[in-house]
This record gives sequence, structure tokens and C-alpha cells, in this order.
Amino acid sequence: MRSSLDCIPCFIRQALEAGRAVSDDPALHETVVREMLLWMSQADLSQSPPSFAQHIHRRLRAAIGDGDPYRAAKDRHNQMALDLLPELRTMITQSHDPLRTAVRLAVAGNAIDMGIEAHISESDLRGAIDLALDHPVCGEPEAFRQAVDNARDILYIADNAGEIALDVLLVEQLGGQRVTVAVRGAPVLNDATLEDARAVGLEAIADVVSNGSDAPGTILADCSEDFRRRFAQADLVIAKGQGNYESLNDEPGNIFFLFKVKCHVIAQQVGEPIGTHMLTRWPRRSAARREDET
Amino acid sequence: MRSSLDCIPCFIRQALEAGRAVSDDPALHETVVREMLLWMSQADLSQSPPSFAQHIHRRLRAAIGDGDPYRAAKDRHNQMALDLLPELRTMITQSHDPLRTAVRLAVAGNAIDMGIEAHISESDLRGAIDLALDHPVCGEPEAFRQAVDNARDILYIADNAGEIALDVLLVEQLGGQRVTVAVRGAPVLNDATLEDARAVGLEAIADVVSNGSDAPGTILADCSEDFRRRFAQADLVIAKGQGNYESLNDEPGNIFFLFKVKCHVIAQQVGEPIGTHMLTRWPRRSAARREDET
Repeated sequence: MRSSLDCIPCFIRQALEAGRAVSDDPALHETVVREMLLWMSQADLSQSPPSFAQHIHRRLRAAIGDGDPYRAAKDRHNQMALDLLPELRTMITQSHDPLRTAVRLAVAGNAIDMGIEAHISESDLRGAIDLALDHPVCGEPEAFRQAVDNARDILYIADNAGEIALDVLLVEQLGGQRVTVAVRGAPVLNDATLEDARAVGLEAIADVVSNGSDAPGTILADCSEDFRRRFAQADLVIAKGQGNYESLNDEPGNIFFLFKVKCHVIAQQVGEPIGTHMLTRWPRRSAARREDET
Repeated sequence: MRSSLDCIPCFIRQALEAGRAVSDDPALHETVVREMLLWMSQADLSQSPPSFAQHIHRRLRAAIGDGDPYRAAKDRHNQMALDLLPELRTMITQSHDPLRTAVRLAVAGNAIDMGIEAHISESDLRGAIDLALDHPVCGEPEAFRQAVDNARDILYIADNAGEIALDVLLVEQLGGQRVTVAVRGAPVLNDATLEDARAVGLEAIADVVSNGSDAPGTILADCSEDFRRRFAQADLVIAKGQGNYESLNDEPGNIFFLFKVKCHVIAQQVGEPIGTHMLTRWPRRSAARREDET
């Protein structure tokens, strides 16, 4: 999708917040904000929002001379989510609809925004999980179920560290042997890379590949040829998180987006309020509905 | 006060929202946003926020070729507030503390943000009034009462149209003959000018002057010499609204600010949450307190 004019103040705010997250130097914060203002005054808005975020985070990493400033936060988030997996796995197997429960847990990982807020506690994570378990996903959950039944080759595009540990549970339900999990090709923000996929044990249950890009989304033109080939060949793509939605929602293919709606621009586009847990193709091909509350 | 880096995304958002409020042309919205990005990349942050807003609104008025695009909204807001005055005046005279009630009604006018939202209904206004009447002002209300008792020459700096009709009630309580009411020198956003002061009848009860500036605040260096002289000579200044606070809070003088806290930057500075109704000098000279709830 194109970036909206409404995205611009949000990009500037993100640059400032990310600058503060990785550096205590106010002069650096100001430099980065001013550079972003100048760059955005000329920027091509046909680019999707993750393309702007990619630029912001490349600049920040260069400015602080640290290629992976969110590494410690990512390790912490992975471990926190991993600690809950045995309990959550039992919950799924005892559920009367294991796929639905696993979907809700996977979106819980996306709902708790570990991106900016490094100080997520275990009780925050548990709160997000409880909310997601009680929160029917909106969009095309039944079409998703049919797509999963019919798929031979599933590409699962992960989003953030921490969240990726909960993705393990959904990949298990999908039957890992037909699933390839794709992660970012290099660190950006707290997005999951190969290191995170390994840390949460995904390599033991599915193929794991890098997409070759350092965008916090999936900008196909920026991804490796190998990733693009897998994307084209998969008969079902599951893309986690709003960044993947923003960068892939204009692409053809059988793509289901699983994400929490986090801003007004996306809320307006999907026609659901901020906070909604979505599981949908774009555009929708079946009437929008919610899962049963049960 | 200086503008914070946190103000920058807000300025960009304001430029976009104001552009949409005064024009339906998306190309114009984009042009204005891009110009603001470029300008802000070089801007002097020692300027106060109203200085940035002044620039934005000058640019918008020039772009659309309309010197007063908020005129119709201002007329509507004035009339809506005027219609309530007889009832509110009775409420004040029957109150056991008329000054306090008049202060609360004056801040109610500031609390209902008529700036961006042109479609304020009478029930919105009544809601803001009811809330303000039940909402003790925070800061230095007792020091304000003493200052009013002692003042010989009061300069009352108004803020917006609509709101200025409710200011009439407080000016009446102050004893209009010692009060000079100052309004903006030219249209900017929905800020009150001489036309609004006349429309709500202020000229009949107090001296009314223009400040000579088109900033949505009081930037002394941008005001007329006459206004600056009155400002220096007044032994009590009452400044309405956050824009007047932002532009005058570093100035010496016996200035009480009466406003609703509307953003995080100011909330952090005054140490009170967004939404608080403040009546305070800056810095405070007496311990912060709330009025009694009664």
C-alpha cells in the first residue's frame, strides 16, 4: 500500500521514539529527526510504510554504530514467551478447536507491542494472551480454515521477536513439515531474524528462511530471489503483523494477514476499529465476519 | 517556552488537519505538508509552538486565498455560547462563590476544542460546561483570588471564538472597568479577533484591544508596541488557553494561565495529566493544590 499523508507525522514520531530507545544523546535525536524531515519532504509516498521505517532504522543503526541495538530486548522477549509455551501448548491440545486457539495465541504475540516498549513484563504478556483468547478474530476465519485444509505448501512470514515464540504453536497446528517460516534478513527494530527463529526452536519443526531484507515488513523488491521464489510458489501465505500487511496487501497470491490493527490509517482501510484482531485476505473475498465468541 | 522535538510530529499533523479543514484539495494538503517538513528540518526550536502554528496558518491562508477561512465556524461558536449566557449568568449570581464558578465556565470554553472540530454541537458545549463545573481547577486558585482582590489593572488575554463569550462572565466578575481584554490582531485558526470581542459584547463592559499579531498565542516580539506597553503595565495578566501559556510562560510578570492541558509535552511540564483544568502562574509560586470539590 501507498503511505498516506497521515503516516508522515507518525514516521517522524517513530524516528524520535526509536532514537530515544537506542541512544541517550539528545543531539542525536534532533539530528535524526531533522534528517527525516528533510528526507520526507521529498519522499515518494507510493512506498509502503515499512519502507520509511526501514530507512529510519538504517539511519539510526549507522548513527549509533550498533548493527542490532534491540538484541537484548529481543532475547528478553523470546525467553519470556518461551517460558509460557508448555502451558499454552497444553491449553491448545485441551481446546475443542486447537487451530482457533493457536491463531488467537499467535495474534496475542502481535497484540502486545514489544516494539517500542522494551519493558514488557510477564504480566503484560499474560494480559495480552488472556485478551486475545477472549477476543474473536475478525475477517475471514472460516476461509482461513479451508485454506489451511487445502494447502500443500505454506509460507509463514513472522514479525517480531517474542511474538515468534507464540508462532511456534500455530506452526505446530499447521503441521510443520509443509511450512516454511520466513524471518527478516537482517536486524531492524525488534523484528525476528534467523537468530530468533533458532532461539524459539522453529528450526526443529519447520524450514526457516531469511527474506534477505532489513525492512520491518516484506517489501518483495527488497527481498532475496530465493525468498521471492518461495513466496510465488507457496499456495498459502500467512503474514503476521501490520508491517507485513502494509507491504504485502497489494500483492497477488493467497495471502492471509494475521495482525492487530494499530493505527487509524489501517483501521479506516479495513473498516474495523484500532485494537481489532484481524485474520483476512486483502481485499476480502468473503463477507467480513467475526469468529463465534465461544 | 522552546518547542520540544515531540512537538514536531504534532505540527505536521496540525498542518495536515488544518489543510483538510480549509480545503478539499488533496494536492494542496500534500504540498503544505511537504513544505512544512522542509521548513521544520531547518527550524529554530527555541521558538514557541504558537510560532510554528502561525507559520502553518499563514501558509494555508495564502494557499487558499482566503484571509479568514474559519470565519463561519467562529460566528457559529460565538452564537452557540452567547445563547447560553443568560442561563450561565444566573448560575453565577446564585452560586455561593461567583468568582470560582465564572473561572470554571471560562475554562469550559477552553476545554471544548473548537479549533479543529468545526462541528461542535450545543450538547457538546453543555457537556464541557457540566464537566468544568464539576472539575476543580488545579494550580494556584487561592493565589489567583488574592491577585484579583489586589489588582488595579488587569489584562485579560483571550483565546478562541466561542470561548470568548464565556470569558464575558469572568470579566464581569473581575469588574470590567479595570479590565482590558486583548484579542489576536488578525485571523488565525479560530482565535478570537476584535470582530469576536464585539460580537459577544465585550466592548460594552471592558476595554478591548488587538495585540497586533496573527500568532495563535502571544509572542510578545510579534505584538504591537501598544500591546506590549499594556502587558508591561498591567499588575495582573490572565492568559487563556494553552497557546498563550506556551508563548508567555517564560515571560516575567504577574501572569495567571487558565487553560486545559491538551498535550503530553505540557502535561509533563506542569506535572498534571492531559485534561486537567489549570489556573496557575509559571513557575508556580505557591504549592500546587486543587480547589475544594464543592
